[in-house]
Amino acid sequence: MRNHSHCPHAWRNPQHRGRMWAASPAFRRRLFLLRSLSPCAAALPNNTSSSSSSPSTFIRLNAMAASDPVYEADAEAVVRRITPPLDRARHKGQAGKIAVIGGCREYTGAPYFAAISALKVGADLSHVFCTRDAATVIKSYSPELIVHPILEESYSVSDGERESVSSRILTEVAKWMERFDCIVVGPGLGRDSFLLDCVSNIMRHARQANIPTVVDGDGLFLITNNLSLVEGNSLAILTPNVYEYKRLVQKVLNCEVNEENASEQLTALCQKIGGITIMQKGKADIISDGKTVTQVSTFGSPRRCGGQGDILSGRFVANVVLSVSFCIFASWARHFLLTNEYPTDKSVNPMMLGCIAGSLLLRKAASHAFEKNKRSTITTDIIEFLGKSLEDICPAGH
Amino acid sequence: MRNHSHCPHAWRNPQHRGRMWAASPAFRRRLFLLRSLSPCAAALPNNTSSSSSSPSTFIRLNAMAASDPVYEADAEAVVRRITPPLDRARHKGQAGKIAVIGGCREYTGAPYFAAISALKVGADLSHVFCTRDAATVIKSYSPELIVHPILEESYSVSDGERESVSSRILTEVAKWMERFDCIVVGPGLGRDSFLLDCVSNIMRHARQANIPTVVDGDGLFLITNNLSLVEGNSLAILTPNVYEYKRLVQKVLNCEVNEENASEQLTALCQKIGGITIMQKGKADIISDGKTVTQVSTFGSPRRCGGQGDILSGRFVANVVLSVSFCIFASWARHFLLTNEYPTDKSVNPMMLGCIAGSLLLRKAASHAFEKNKRSTITTDIIEFLGKSLEDICPAGH
Repeated sequence: MRNHSHCPHAWRNPQHRGRMWAASPAFRRRLFLLRSLSPCAAALPNNTSSSSSSPSTFIRLNAMAASDPVYEADAEAVVRRITPPLDRARHKGQAGKIAVIGGCREYTGAPYFAAISALKVGADLSHVFCTRDAATVIKSYSPELIVHPILEESYSVSDGERESVSSRILTEVAKWMERFDCIVVGPGLGRDSFLLDCVSNIMRHARQANIPTVVDGDGLFLITNNLSLVEGNSLAILTPNVYEYKRLVQKVLNCEVNEENASEQLTALCQKIGGITIMQKGKADIISDGKTVTQVSTFGSPRRCGGQGDILSGRFVANVVLSVSFCIFASWARHFLLTNEYPTDKSVNPMMLGCIAGSLLLRKAASHAFEKNKRSTITTDIIEFLGKSLEDICPAGH
Repeated sequence: MRNHSHCPHAWRNPQHRGRMWAASPAFRRRLFLLRSLSPCAAALPNNTSSSSSSPSTFIRLNAMAASDPVYEADAEAVVRRITPPLDRARHKGQAGKIAVIGGCREYTGAPYFAAISALKVGADLSHVFCTRDAATVIKSYSPELIVHPILEESYSVSDGERESVSSRILTEVAKWMERFDCIVVGPGLGRDSFLLDCVSNIMRHARQANIPTVVDGDGLFLITNNLSLVEGNSLAILTPNVYEYKRLVQKVLNCEVNEENASEQLTALCQKIGGITIMQKGKADIISDGKTVTQVSTFGSPRRCGGQGDILSGRFVANVVLSVSFCIFASWARHFLLTNEYPTDKSVNPMMLGCIAGSLLLRKAASHAFEKNKRSTITTDIIEFLGKSLEDICPAGH
């Protein structure tokens, strides 16, 4: 089921692990990435761990069930590695420009949460593309966002206008697309057929432009009914909750969700859709790209677990925060791997790193928010703690 | 006047109260419910109290007047018992999904306060169904709410369209109805005749679907003129203030409010409308379902009484917060009783428990808010303390 291509044979041969090599930055960087991602990293002898200077690069193992071990990603190490350093020489936009495609007459909260979360995690610019009715409201939530009121729903477009309006919408979004490091499709999108057709065009355009695309909420409804939109797109991430995952499994694998072999089923699902990355949200977030599977289940403090779990599963919009954390982290991970001087690191999937980092950050933020607000915790409270959670893992002063 | 069916004869027979039984969880649970609700609980010998492990399960008696004793509910015990535990295995929505039917061109604050209060008390999802004009404003108050702009007022509907628009509104609300654990009808509803006709249809639909319904504000104007909307609906709660209560008494009992025999008149009113639950808001909140009558008048601290009383009687929108606290607590109480392993508990009316819990929580929150803000206390300040008030009674970590 699992492809061990991330573990070249050389790593298992003691002759290749001399003292000099073990102490080199290249070795430590590769070791870190392997440990963060690959189950086979557990097979690495313990003595290689001692060559690492930081305890945070040790892999933590966490078997889910005897029949189905899924290894815990070293998510803190991933966050530390992919978060770009603060650098006074950098220009606006270099820490990330993202766009949320969502927001209609009925739903405005979800796209707002997604877009503001990106800024709170450290993105420079956060855009929202939504319908005209939604735009005024989303703008009113915050002056920090750039909100484009250019999508349309069926009720505002006559049959005769459909083709020209659809074409105009694509043109308007397309002229921005190249500027984005990542887009999130789906928060508060609704299910209007004309709107979904327009968004399908936008997704195809993003794919042609090689823009990483996170699909959440109603975007998952869209792609479940039209898998070709993401099939074979290695830059796509799906973030289904328990209900959305169920529909996806039924549609793609033609069977029911198998909780006994959760990671194997998830891996099969990713493979069937052509190597996209999926994070199955739940008590533990399980992440796979069809080759590797890992999970994030850690909390900042064990005594926060009860509340944190509740927040994560109970507050639906927290999922939106999560999806946009993926978005910005995935773009950072991609940038980190593309500009990395060690070519072997490029075999690591940046979408996986983005998911691991986003999952951890939301879990930490939800934990802090719950500690402060208990049962009355709302999504706004979680977003308030995204910055502190990132700072705790990866201080901006360093 | 009072129906003692909640006090089976066995409870009065000492032979049935052996040491073993008195110490059992089943006994304590039944004792708690009886004490929380029933005036006859006062007849229980003192020695049974000692079998209870917590002083909070003692009933506190508070005679209003010699001729008319109303027993104080052990509201803290009710809150602790019906509030669902936090559980990591729970999914989105399992802690409660509520909807507020209200909000028109003129009034937008009340439905917002009601819906956000539900989230602050711990509900997972909070919807508002309002007119199009109100929706943009209510959305802009908070991205946490799901606001449906589907109601219409007379000014926006021509005579010829009325039937089709009314039918469309019912269809749109109905497709959501099954998802709600409770609805609140009335905050900021206004008195437009077409709108009230549409809301009457929604109330009839909710009743057919067995959805608990709290009626407040302009909803009380509606039902006072059309009692059949709630008559005989044991899942309905009315929350009149002093003026609304007066109109209700005049209409139903054809007499004036009798403050000397307040609880008896309230009980008669509930019976006359067929066993609905009414909470008469005032210095003490008196609650009856036509069979049982109880009151909540306690404060967190005696020295706060003045301020608290002022808030409760002086700030009308606090009533809205109260009504939605009823809503979520009533749905929790209903769930608690439906899933309870002790069948006898099912004889307790969950609507009564919801009122007791909601009343206490608002009193505590208002008390905290007044202590902090004194004369400048506004509804937002009270809502801010709903979480802390619940946490003080029922810590989320437990």
